[in-house]
Amino acid sequence: MFDPTDHPHRRFNPLIGEWVLVSPHRARRPWQGQQEAVDDTPKPAHDPHCYLCAGNTRVNGEVNPDYKGTFVFNNDFAALMADTPDAPAGTDPLFRNTSARGLSRVICFSPDHGKSLPEMDLPGLEQVVDTWCAQAGELGRTYPWVQVFENKGQAMGCSNPHPHGQVWANSFIPNSPAREDVQQRAYHQEHGRPMLLDYAEREAAAGDRTVVITGHWLAVVPYWAAWPFETLLLPRFEVKRLEELTKEQRTDLAVAIKQLTIKYDNLFQTSFPYSMGWHGAPYAVDGQGGNEGNTSAPWQLHAHFYPPLLRSASVRKFMVGYEMLAEAQRDLTPEQAAARLRALPDVHYLQRP
Amino acid sequence: MFDPTDHPHRRFNPLIGEWVLVSPHRARRPWQGQQEAVDDTPKPAHDPHCYLCAGNTRVNGEVNPDYKGTFVFNNDFAALMADTPDAPAGTDPLFRNTSARGLSRVICFSPDHGKSLPEMDLPGLEQVVDTWCAQAGELGRTYPWVQVFENKGQAMGCSNPHPHGQVWANSFIPNSPAREDVQQRAYHQEHGRPMLLDYAEREAAAGDRTVVITGHWLAVVPYWAAWPFETLLLPRFEVKRLEELTKEQRTDLAVAIKQLTIKYDNLFQTSFPYSMGWHGAPYAVDGQGGNEGNTSAPWQLHAHFYPPLLRSASVRKFMVGYEMLAEAQRDLTPEQAAARLRALPDVHYLQRP
Ligand SMILES: O=P(O)(O)O[C@H]1O[C@H](CO)[C@@H](O)[C@H](O)[C@H]1O
Ligand SMILES: O=P(O)(O)O[C@H]1O[C@H](CO)[C@@H](O)[C@H](O)[C@H]1O
Repeated sequence: MFDPTDHPHRRFNPLIGEWVLVSPHRARRPWQGQQEAVDDTPKPAHDPHCYLCAGNTRVNGEVNPDYKGTFVFNNDFAALMADTPDAPAGTDPLFRNTSARGLSRVICFSPDHGKSLPEMDLPGLEQVVDTWCAQAGELGRTYPWVQVFENKGQAMGCSNPHPHGQVWANSFIPNSPAREDVQQRAYHQEHGRPMLLDYAEREAAAGDRTVVITGHWLAVVPYWAAWPFETLLLPRFEVKRLEELTKEQRTDLAVAIKQLTIKYDNLFQTSFPYSMGWHGAPYAVDGQGGNEGNTSAPWQLHAHFYPPLLRSASVRKFMVGYEMLAEAQRDLTPEQAAARLRALPDVHYLQRP
Repeated sequence: MFDPTDHPHRRFNPLIGEWVLVSPHRARRPWQGQQEAVDDTPKPAHDPHCYLCAGNTRVNGEVNPDYKGTFVFNNDFAALMADTPDAPAGTDPLFRNTSARGLSRVICFSPDHGKSLPEMDLPGLEQVVDTWCAQAGELGRTYPWVQVFENKGQAMGCSNPHPHGQVWANSFIPNSPAREDVQQRAYHQEHGRPMLLDYAEREAAAGDRTVVITGHWLAVVPYWAAWPFETLLLPRFEVKRLEELTKEQRTDLAVAIKQLTIKYDNLFQTSFPYSMGWHGAPYAVDGQGGNEGNTSAPWQLHAHFYPPLLRSASVRKFMVGYEMLAEAQRDLTPEQAAARLRALPDVHYLQRP
């Protein structure tokens, strides 16, 4: 008899229309490969050499203001520019390109160099949420896609330990949201409701993949998670975009994020690396192409958390060979991962009495 | 005027139907993030503690034979099993799964613990090619997909430095080849020729993305490369699968692989990490589902090389935040990458007189 807690199987991710291979026992194999460098030395509240700390000078000579809450500025090495000229329309199917416009900003979460999201207090976290919402709202007036995200930790390519995120605005709809658009649209067409609203209700009722649940929000290890401790943070109400969140929903979101990131830090008693970011309905502006006939009805706002660690603070999952060439593969079931996270205390390991 | 060597733009990957964001100047930004551990100490030809070396004992107690060329055995911690029972057919669109069968083997490239592909001699490399071809041919009789690959280097999750690759056979067509199948089929329908045969001819004529060219093979940094020094290794003749290669084409493939991997090692004078693997036409057997009505005519055999390094032996490209949530992004153009690789000597930096 087939048993998904025991037998290798594939699960389908309906949000992107792809499969993931689940191998429930592979985490048992011994690990002799790379160990991540772990730097958990406490950081000072202000570091004179940090280019994100208040009052310090950045690479381009600008001086950061003496900011108190969040602080947003344009990335000094942006991947996109606002004024790139149009590329001539090409027809060659093997050599297709198109020009791309956009901008890129850095969001310092607070002046405190030493405190990442799980260690911040709730008013501070609410300010981060408000800043995300304000950036999405502002940039969505010009750009069809606004990607709010955070790379946390050296293992996730973060080059400055000062707690910060980014926002990249794009004149096009990038691959991942374009796929989510197709999938959510098809589901909506067939079932008449946003896919992720149905999914949140089903998960809240099931409970076995739930990590955090509040009045308005739900964090689950999704049924189709690829990364070992990946989570999907979902509103338990209908909402398309960050900036549409009410005051109460934002306050509660701060609570949910604090709980989730505390559990993450507690899992391996380390500052838990991840990339996280928000997906909301694309905007009906046409920066340049790619937003043809978009209507936002099928969309539901959500955040993805993609953390790399698998076994400990120093042993990560490598999405390499088979995964790059064939299909994402995970070494424990989403239910096993969720149970471990759910069981962890709600108090940060560094702040316990 | 739009200039692709200067302006950020997107390029289209026709093999998977996705875009990549190209930011020609972003490699100029300073890097203060993670440095990879580089272990370039010379390795002995035989390591008594290596479970892949000849005559040594593996984790499961088996003793490796005193092998002389390549050596293939079943992975002691396989992600898939040959006898997983069928999963009951489900209809829930949000919680879809299916059982997955397969097997996983390890391919030691040679008994020499200290020599990776670029350092092996041509007869040794030909044996590796022959082993890949034999494995594909054998497993393709039972499984619709046979993924031959190599993870090289700790940065690519390789847990044993003994030069080796793997082969995973699947009862299903994984995501990536399934997408390549759709794309190649559509191109073939429209143009009447395999997409990658047309592409190889165009690239051989253009030359500016060429890294290695031999009588039968071509390695290019593809027009749509995502990783900084990614290459696509293409036959310059029509062929669908590894096992169909003639003796002469195999001999020449050994030459092309040696030249390509020598250039890789020479780029940063380090044992260059990568994941590489082969994609050939799926097999018309029905292990379980996923191979409906497959015909192989549009397929062209090819290998992908995905190396992570960007700036030096110790600074890699991180495909994180924006890339995971939105779209792959690269920091130099494919033409810049190809020009650098092309200009490197054909003799390995450790073997120069
Ligand atoms: O099988 P290995 O070499 O132990 O493991 C490596 O390759 C596998 C296949 O790409 C991955 O799933 C693992 O994450 C990686 O560490
Ligand atoms: O912008 P940062 O933090 O310097 O850079 C980091 O995030 C970017 C966006 O995800 C990536 O392109 C880089 O590879 C990564 O190192």
